Amino acid sequence: MPGNHILINHMHDLIIIGGGPAGIAAGIYASRQKLNALLITKSFGGQMARKAVAIENYPGFEEISGAELIHKFEKHLRKQKISIEMGEVKIVKKTSKGFLISTKTKKQFQAKAVIVASGADPRPLEVPGEKKFIGKGVSYCVACDGPLFAGKNVAVVGGGNAGFEAVLSLIKFAKKIYILESGPKAAADSLLQEKALKTGKVELLTSAESKKIEGKDFVESMTYLDKKTKRTRKLQVEGIFVEIGSQPATSFVKGLVDFNEKDEVMVNPRTGKTKTAGLFAAGDLDDVPYKQIAVAAGEGVKAALSASIYLQNLIR
Amino acid sequence: MPGNHILINHMHDLIIIGGGPAGIAAGIYASRQKLNALLITKSFGGQMARKAVAIENYPGFEEISGAELIHKFEKHLRKQKISIEMGEVKIVKKTSKGFLISTKTKKQFQAKAVIVASGADPRPLEVPGEKKFIGKGVSYCVACDGPLFAGKNVAVVGGGNAGFEAVLSLIKFAKKIYILESGPKAAADSLLQEKALKTGKVELLTSAESKKIEGKDFVESMTYLDKKTKRTRKLQVEGIFVEIGSQPATSFVKGLVDFNEKDEVMVNPRTGKTKTAGLFAAGDLDDVPYKQIAVAAGEGVKAALSASIYLQNLIR
Repeated sequence: MPGNHILINHMHDLIIIGGGPAGIAAGIYASRQKLNALLITKSFGGQMARKAVAIENYPGFEEISGAELIHKFEKHLRKQKISIEMGEVKIVKKTSKGFLISTKTKKQFQAKAVIVASGADPRPLEVPGEKKFIGKGVSYCVACDGPLFAGKNVAVVGGGNAGFEAVLSLIKFAKKIYILESGPKAAADSLLQEKALKTGKVELLTSAESKKIEGKDFVESMTYLDKKTKRTRKLQVEGIFVEIGSQPATSFVKGLVDFNEKDEVMVNPRTGKTKTAGLFAAGDLDDVPYKQIAVAAGEGVKAALSASIYLQNLIR
Repeated sequence: MPGNHILINHMHDLIIIGGGPAGIAAGIYASRQKLNALLITKSFGGQMARKAVAIENYPGFEEISGAELIHKFEKHLRKQKISIEMGEVKIVKKTSKGFLISTKTKKQFQAKAVIVASGADPRPLEVPGEKKFIGKGVSYCVACDGPLFAGKNVAVVGGGNAGFEAVLSLIKFAKKIYILESGPKAAADSLLQEKALKTGKVELLTSAESKKIEGKDFVESMTYLDKKTKRTRKLQVEGIFVEIGSQPATSFVKGLVDFNEKDEVMVNPRTGKTKTAGLFAAGDLDDVPYKQIAVAAGEGVKAALSASIYLQNLIR
């Protein structure tokens, strides 16, 4: 290990990486299991922090802002006996005693077991206007925000399965749906494409390179370049769903886990176990298909209880 | 079908059976997916209704009574566009169009898809005093209630894996743990038994037939018959954990699903799918090992989203 790291000379039972619903749920359960646990996160809330609209689908709260729900989760966590380190994990290494975790602030922590719950970020389009309108027409989650666009024209960027699945979810809400694919042909299963297109509500635009998003307070249009005709076209849309993949925040566990084709960490969804004994995963970064607050929380609970059983089995 | 049933002549998209965390979460998501859904339950709350102590482990609520959390869940559900039928399901049958559901009050409902979320009840000991002291020393959930017995003497009834796992979870809390097995030999894995017994805190009592539970306001003792010596013995314990199996409330779907050795419905834990297309399961009745509110809610969400995709695929 590089000499300029500060090694914290304490062996934790468990280190949880991530402060979203999965990490927080895991932290609450780990503490209640009397594990000597540390939670490392760069911030609290995970995907909840991206929500500009009210959360109406976490059971128990009819309607709550993302910020308020994060506050309640964080407060619940801080009530427990758990150490919290604000920082970003750079690498997790397997050692003879367990795991060694290095942060970007050059601290090193040790634990017998680890839960990776650092979430996934949707891959951004990276066009002008995108950042400005996040939560104001630009969305990365149809399941969360689809119902907000009832009767409106929307665009979905990305012609893969995720894009077409987004279109199919939007059909019951939106008036008209443009789907923009940057390649000459949409990659989604033809069955999915067929189903979407036969509704008569969907227009597929191929070789369409997204250029900019414009509006006043909310999105009003999306401009793209038709790479075949070399012409730009401005679509009058109030919603833009970006479905060009996600980036699970998991590069720091490469080698210790298997990834699926979406770069999601492969887990046993009953237990949260990964291929490395003692290393568990939960929440949006794993290969469970639904990315929802309640799902992530449930997975955090499972991973913590699995870690607790794993630790019990070590002490013999 | 018997002529004295009233057939409700309406084809629902989805019927959800059960009003615990899994069923309610599924109901919230199904409504938000604009499914024409009906939820049938005999009561609200599921296992939450059994909790006499505060719930401290559902993320977002630091401490809330079971009754209060049920109220919040039920209110959240009732805010959605979903029909609710108070009743108990007697049988679910597969038909050419989907499913036909008969209740004990002789009504029949139809749906294209079904989510079974009717929970599981721990198998009771059926000895005098047991019912009286539920939540006052008698518990069916170590994960929920173990921490309440710090420094106390407790008994675990049941010498199978569940019983010994309960003992191992209790070791960090309880002072002394008696484990009562009615047979001549505990059935748990020997490794589990060894681990429990070598702590020096555990006393295994075989051929021990539970007889009665006594106390004033809370449990004070448990009496059992030693079937070898034919003598009764009274244990001074303040907590009794009953771990003699559970009874998933699923007899009404026999033939449509596979059961594991614990009579739990076997599901794909990623999606909630059972072996019958269009029939999903979620919550305590399925074969996911952890029976927790947050886990059940997460599974309800997954089942509802899977049902929504299933229904989309039907419309072609």
